[in-house]
Amino acid sequence: MKFNKLTNKHIDKLISIVGIKYVHQSKQKRVEYGSDETEDFSFPPEIVLLPKTKEEVSEIMKLAYEFNLPVTPMGARTGLSGGALSIYGGIGLSMERFNKIIKIDEDNLQVIVQPGVITEVLQNECKAKGLYYAPDPASRGTCFIGGNLAENSGGPRAVKYGVTKDFVLNLEVVLPNGDVIETGANTLKNSTGYNLTQLMVGSEGTLGIITKAVLKLLPYPKQNLLMLVPFKSATKACEAVSAIFKAGITPSALEFMERDAIVWTIDFLNEKSIKIEDDVAAQLLIEVDGNNAEVLFKDCEIIAEVVDKFEAGEILFAESEAQKDALWFIRRRVGEAVKSNSIYKEEDTVVPRFELANLLKGVKKIGEKYGFTSVCYGHAGDGNLHINIIKGKLSDAAWKNELPKGIREIFELTVALGGTLSGEHGIGYVQKNYMDIAFSNVELDLMKAIKKAFDSKGILNPGKIFE
Amino acid sequence: MKFNKLTNKHIDKLISIVGIKYVHQSKQKRVEYGSDETEDFSFPPEIVLLPKTKEEVSEIMKLAYEFNLPVTPMGARTGLSGGALSIYGGIGLSMERFNKIIKIDEDNLQVIVQPGVITEVLQNECKAKGLYYAPDPASRGTCFIGGNLAENSGGPRAVKYGVTKDFVLNLEVVLPNGDVIETGANTLKNSTGYNLTQLMVGSEGTLGIITKAVLKLLPYPKQNLLMLVPFKSATKACEAVSAIFKAGITPSALEFMERDAIVWTIDFLNEKSIKIEDDVAAQLLIEVDGNNAEVLFKDCEIIAEVVDKFEAGEILFAESEAQKDALWFIRRRVGEAVKSNSIYKEEDTVVPRFELANLLKGVKKIGEKYGFTSVCYGHAGDGNLHINIIKGKLSDAAWKNELPKGIREIFELTVALGGTLSGEHGIGYVQKNYMDIAFSNVELDLMKAIKKAFDSKGILNPGKIFE
Repeated sequence: MKFNKLTNKHIDKLISIVGIKYVHQSKQKRVEYGSDETEDFSFPPEIVLLPKTKEEVSEIMKLAYEFNLPVTPMGARTGLSGGALSIYGGIGLSMERFNKIIKIDEDNLQVIVQPGVITEVLQNECKAKGLYYAPDPASRGTCFIGGNLAENSGGPRAVKYGVTKDFVLNLEVVLPNGDVIETGANTLKNSTGYNLTQLMVGSEGTLGIITKAVLKLLPYPKQNLLMLVPFKSATKACEAVSAIFKAGITPSALEFMERDAIVWTIDFLNEKSIKIEDDVAAQLLIEVDGNNAEVLFKDCEIIAEVVDKFEAGEILFAESEAQKDALWFIRRRVGEAVKSNSIYKEEDTVVPRFELANLLKGVKKIGEKYGFTSVCYGHAGDGNLHINIIKGKLSDAAWKNELPKGIREIFELTVALGGTLSGEHGIGYVQKNYMDIAFSNVELDLMKAIKKAFDSKGILNPGKIFE
Repeated sequence: MKFNKLTNKHIDKLISIVGIKYVHQSKQKRVEYGSDETEDFSFPPEIVLLPKTKEEVSEIMKLAYEFNLPVTPMGARTGLSGGALSIYGGIGLSMERFNKIIKIDEDNLQVIVQPGVITEVLQNECKAKGLYYAPDPASRGTCFIGGNLAENSGGPRAVKYGVTKDFVLNLEVVLPNGDVIETGANTLKNSTGYNLTQLMVGSEGTLGIITKAVLKLLPYPKQNLLMLVPFKSATKACEAVSAIFKAGITPSALEFMERDAIVWTIDFLNEKSIKIEDDVAAQLLIEVDGNNAEVLFKDCEIIAEVVDKFEAGEILFAESEAQKDALWFIRRRVGEAVKSNSIYKEEDTVVPRFELANLLKGVKKIGEKYGFTSVCYGHAGDGNLHINIIKGKLSDAAWKNELPKGIREIFELTVALGGTLSGEHGIGYVQKNYMDIAFSNVELDLMKAIKKAFDSKGILNPGKIFE
């Protein structure tokens, strides 16, 4: 890549655009903004900018475009694929000051929001008006809507309500050359030109910088029931997942946790109220929601009948909101617990849901071959399995040189099962070397041509998605 | 455009690809394949080809690409924006022999289907297995899935279940140069590279030729209730639409019909069983669906309370499946009835749903200014209003020269209300001159650059979407 380093002249101009107060140049700050939640990478940008308006973002991009300066957009930096890492230095463009919910439109069930709003804040503001923004990544308490848009985040409720892309109506975007566009209209339906909105969602900050989003809302479901189902066999648990849908039930969450995921999390949280029997190999956490309690009880009865055929153990029905919160708290902290336990790598595989058992079996087999253990959990209803590969006693050499072959085998298996590399974390920096498994050269070239149509100089978030 | 005319050499090669039986060269056939359901346009291709396999499509495209021959993909030719018209002659590529449902995958709630399958056939095959493919355009009895994908079709059930794009997981596509790609994976979630699937959906056959689609299915809802609600004021009917959602109800259909739309259709069908009172200005046809009859009855009660606030007349609850069918039959035939009554133009406007009343009022006002009448109906729950502009007594000169100014004003109003040109019919041939109202030059240039990335020679479905 032939990017330029920032000069004092560039820096003076950038300061004049955003104001000195919103420019970080210290090493400490650059290091802080140089990492996200992906492994232990550190790629400090040369400068960090905190613009406040789309006009400022546009001015920054015009300068960057003119002088070939790489720009890495970033938000809460909670990403798990390294999408916000400033691989080539340059400008770190933090969107944290775009933190306003502009309008909750109760007449049209829409919300207009800036990208730096924390997902859970948006959810709570909407909930207060009886409205539901469903996408619900585990990091919802800290992650930004902008990052959710960039990575097409999912979370447990995607199984019933869809992922981030399914809630996006329209985006305001600053293009790499500084031009500002709207991608669509504030409508539920749209057959007017190419779907730039959906092209932008999940493009990991490589095509443009989202400065405003119009999102769809739903009426808030009034009731939910939560049940925790233990299985003696992880494979049987996976098989039960598909059977639940075949029985005509669409749960609002259907989460899978391997034994180790549960045990490690209970230990990590020092949570003594939750017990796991010795013979439990995996659990499903199943939620149903709606507006009628009787219907939900009936759904739970049907689910109980289904899981019984897969040798489920005694089902725990959450009896209070507090107990629901406790169960969800454990589920949401699994990632963190695993992370605290060992050096690890997380793969975000996704397959058609019936193939989940085959994926799980295959992963364990590949682990045996390469000598690694893995802790698996995830959004089983969507066929989305997070595979945490644990370094444990693996030598540094094996971790560095052999493991990538094992990961490649995992992804090859995933694709062979009709799936793909990432369900909700994105490709970013860490998975780009595996893109050839999911896509042919023709397909990759097409994506690169799209990138070029948006960013002819390749200055926006370089080094992501593609090699 | 600098396309070549087909020579005998090209024709010989094309015959060798698909077989002489599947080539039409007669004037009669070329004229037959030269029109769709859009007004009275006729653009016969120079030759009509009926390939059977993706390999044949690929060979055809390689030839067309090499020799600069325009290719217009076509299916059932039921489109309403002229997307299948062979504006520049060349090859008419009919996908009618791609008519197989390859697999209904009950384990994963997916169906793999070829593009030439009739939408209703697919729906019925899925329904027989308890599965639901929801997108439901009025032409479902004749239109093809491929056309639904190309135009991102909607229909009445989109309000609850989404449009075609929301059911597409993966597409097999032949590119303009003959290369074959898959756009994604057979998974519910996917954050792996750019969303080529969603870029292809709604691209109106300008980016590639869909040869296979993997679609999502849902469990079939077991119950539904249907009610017909008359209003003395069309504006009040529109206002009631938004209020129903605010009351926490998401109907499975929420259709609006102006008085003329109903009367004309009753006359057209000679349907004496349905009566419309003299003081009725508009009707809403409202359906709720689910798995529990009691819940649905309660939903209907809430809806009845809401519409009462907007001066609704006496509600007709459909008491039998036959009566439901009769009501839906009328709704589905409105377009045809209007068409039979006068020369007309149909606009497929869409706005945020609360703006529907403002759009309707504005359309009537613009009609007064330009001397045209209009019959309006559509998917009110989505804010999608079909405006049928009636020629009636308007002079040919006014129809030709003045009306486009009126249409421009309608679209300007639509966009000013946060909406856009087309909700579900596409831009195609007939609306492309209005694209500047919805998009800036930067936005249009971006779309054209995407087109170029897929089709550097511009041979695939030329003269559509853009001027």
